[in-house]
Amino acid sequence: MTATITAPSRQANFTGLKCKECGAEYEAQAIHVCEYCFGPLEVKYDLSQLAKTITRQTIEAGPNSIWRYRSFLPVETNTPIDVGTGMTPLLKANRLARQLGLKHLYIKNDAVNMPTLSFKDRVVSVALTRAQELGFTTVSCASTGNLANSTAAIAARAGLDCCVFIPSDLEAGKVLGTLIYGPTVMAVNGNYDQVNRLCSEVANTHGWGFVNINLRPYYSEGSKTLGYEVIEQLGWELPDHIVAPLASGSLFTKIYKGFREFIEVGLVADKAVRCSGAQALGCSPIASAFSEGRDFINPVKPSTIAKSIAIGNPADGVYALDIARKTNGNIESVNDDEIVAGIKLLAETEGIFTETAGGTTIAVLKKLVEAGKIDPEEKTVVYITGNGLKTQEAVQGYIGEPLTIEPKLDAFERALERSRTLERLEWQPVLV
Amino acid sequence: MTATITAPSRQANFTGLKCKECGAEYEAQAIHVCEYCFGPLEVKYDLSQLAKTITRQTIEAGPNSIWRYRSFLPVETNTPIDVGTGMTPLLKANRLARQLGLKHLYIKNDAVNMPTLSFKDRVVSVALTRAQELGFTTVSCASTGNLANSTAAIAARAGLDCCVFIPSDLEAGKVLGTLIYGPTVMAVNGNYDQVNRLCSEVANTHGWGFVNINLRPYYSEGSKTLGYEVIEQLGWELPDHIVAPLASGSLFTKIYKGFREFIEVGLVADKAVRCSGAQALGCSPIASAFSEGRDFINPVKPSTIAKSIAIGNPADGVYALDIARKTNGNIESVNDDEIVAGIKLLAETEGIFTETAGGTTIAVLKKLVEAGKIDPEEKTVVYITGNGLKTQEAVQGYIGEPLTIEPKLDAFERALERSRTLERLEWQPVLV
Repeated sequence: MTATITAPSRQANFTGLKCKECGAEYEAQAIHVCEYCFGPLEVKYDLSQLAKTITRQTIEAGPNSIWRYRSFLPVETNTPIDVGTGMTPLLKANRLARQLGLKHLYIKNDAVNMPTLSFKDRVVSVALTRAQELGFTTVSCASTGNLANSTAAIAARAGLDCCVFIPSDLEAGKVLGTLIYGPTVMAVNGNYDQVNRLCSEVANTHGWGFVNINLRPYYSEGSKTLGYEVIEQLGWELPDHIVAPLASGSLFTKIYKGFREFIEVGLVADKAVRCSGAQALGCSPIASAFSEGRDFINPVKPSTIAKSIAIGNPADGVYALDIARKTNGNIESVNDDEIVAGIKLLAETEGIFTETAGGTTIAVLKKLVEAGKIDPEEKTVVYITGNGLKTQEAVQGYIGEPLTIEPKLDAFERALERSRTLERLEWQPVLV
Repeated sequence: MTATITAPSRQANFTGLKCKECGAEYEAQAIHVCEYCFGPLEVKYDLSQLAKTITRQTIEAGPNSIWRYRSFLPVETNTPIDVGTGMTPLLKANRLARQLGLKHLYIKNDAVNMPTLSFKDRVVSVALTRAQELGFTTVSCASTGNLANSTAAIAARAGLDCCVFIPSDLEAGKVLGTLIYGPTVMAVNGNYDQVNRLCSEVANTHGWGFVNINLRPYYSEGSKTLGYEVIEQLGWELPDHIVAPLASGSLFTKIYKGFREFIEVGLVADKAVRCSGAQALGCSPIASAFSEGRDFINPVKPSTIAKSIAIGNPADGVYALDIARKTNGNIESVNDDEIVAGIKLLAETEGIFTETAGGTTIAVLKKLVEAGKIDPEEKTVVYITGNGLKTQEAVQGYIGEPLTIEPKLDAFERALERSRTLERLEWQPVLV
């Protein structure tokens, strides 16, 4: 139940933790806040050393999962928890591109990430591997749903005890998709920010490994793999522009960090990548700061169907803001109707069923294109981070109903005729 | 809308269709029944030719999807519809193995297959690629749910019109997970066998490509990849024993065919593989025939929560029966309670959330082990074919509830104490 301090072995390329604000250094323990300035701690690597040995070939020869990038991840073991997480498809999205008027659009599809169908499997695989190295036997998290699914599933696989915390108003699929693995589930009457505060208190008293609190420096590094994979899958090239959802802002900053690290060790040629972020209007503290030219975040009380990204007080918001500005990107928000339309647009053009966070990202993509903020010639990558089967409530009532018929040919013919007439009468191009 | 006959190009290794019963040969058109004896048609390959060129290395250098095995699949194009389908994880299942008393247990996890989280993405990728080659612009299917999801999604991606047929009592997630892609959905008041009969009539009148009717010879070949992948992922070795679910029996027969083909072209050393099948007691016509020593199937009226495998009149039932017998395998069935327990057991030990079909397979695995019909020393592979998020109704009420608390430390501490007391009082080992 308690954390033990372990010095990195020879196989690890990380050398400790470092405060992002004041630069104070720490051993690689289960801590996440600087003692001096209360800034967030980040993992420190010896990249100059790594640059001497790492090549595209050594990476390509690795496993078909995030662990092909193990040298860039904060674990010591050569046998991390590998359930096939990562290396999700990067699909050329020609039909969606045509609808939007883009030429080179790609979808990075973590709606089919393994094992629990969201990008969270990346961060949890790293966090639980590190949790085991640090001696934890109980793991936990504060979650908007996907993280709870992933922590419970991977903890079950690894044989770790698990207790997760969620807001009590989550979608049914996310609650059931956690309970099934047999963890203790605490449903908190409050929003994510309240859940998160409670968890910080529990982390101080119970000696548990909270993947996104005391293990956060390790956990968050898992998102860098979304940067690495896109580079590798584009044939060892950087994209021109990315669009990703913003919740705490961590994912966004780590994709950027992933790009910079591959440039730094010489795996890819340097190029400016514009980084744009997506928020739901009902929880858009980072987008507001961006549009108002502020460099601080005013916390908000979330009210949106995009619950998985409804973080009113985003821990890494200012860092995301900074990256969007310095890369000449944008941060935009869309309302709940646009989010549902975004989910449908992606499903109908590319056969990908994403959750509300993905609908948000697609709707923001569309908004940015229409505002001339994405050039049709740019090689643009959109990050889809979760699966629509978990947020079925969001689209119920907006996707029509089956035509119910008796098992007879004439019943079918009549229904088909009726549906074609309806189509002619009601047909509207989707979101165009 | 109409099929055109296309002679296989030089790049294809298939030479036509052949009746499985009387051996009559046909051109590779959209037909599936022998004109002479009404037997099922199967694709014919020139394996002796293929054996001269195919190597493990050429396969390993291919894409990370089923299309690395293109030479063994009935398509002509070098650019098939590839959305990352296949190459799902083969996981060593140590925790489940320990619970059951096995030593070498593996899970082939198609619950995370792409894009729609079931093995059907394999057969549909092949069928729609072939449908395009044959000139179809509208595709269709008779489905118990997963096939409808997959056909609608991949048709959307490929820009094909789509109309699917399902029984009207399917799980909500499977209906919504089809509607989202925008096809026409016909919900038929009847069971799968009635849906299937209706579709056979429609196929004769509308000139559509029904993936599992007039395109069935091509479609069904996609399941062979579940055999190929297991061989490759075991390090180019055959397992000793497999356990797979039986619906129409097609999947089972094609996994076996995949094994035999890789032996025939010299990619793997010959070895006897025992093939065992799993059915739900409420729809177990093949298991009944097996236990009663019959070599014919008596059709049944399905009544089980395992709707995705509820086929009362299985088209390939007799072939599955034959394979189980000649490989020294077994066919067993389990009731609905055992199916739910199977879903929970797999989730709690390995972090994999499967649907009712997977619960059936795990419960049958357990039953076979307990009956001494699987040797603990055998290298056993269990096929998990679909995702639990689509059949949430099946486990609702059997997995407990979250503990609802106020966002305060003392509320959490009280809830935790309560849950631990409950655990001590009520604790029962899962399915042991």
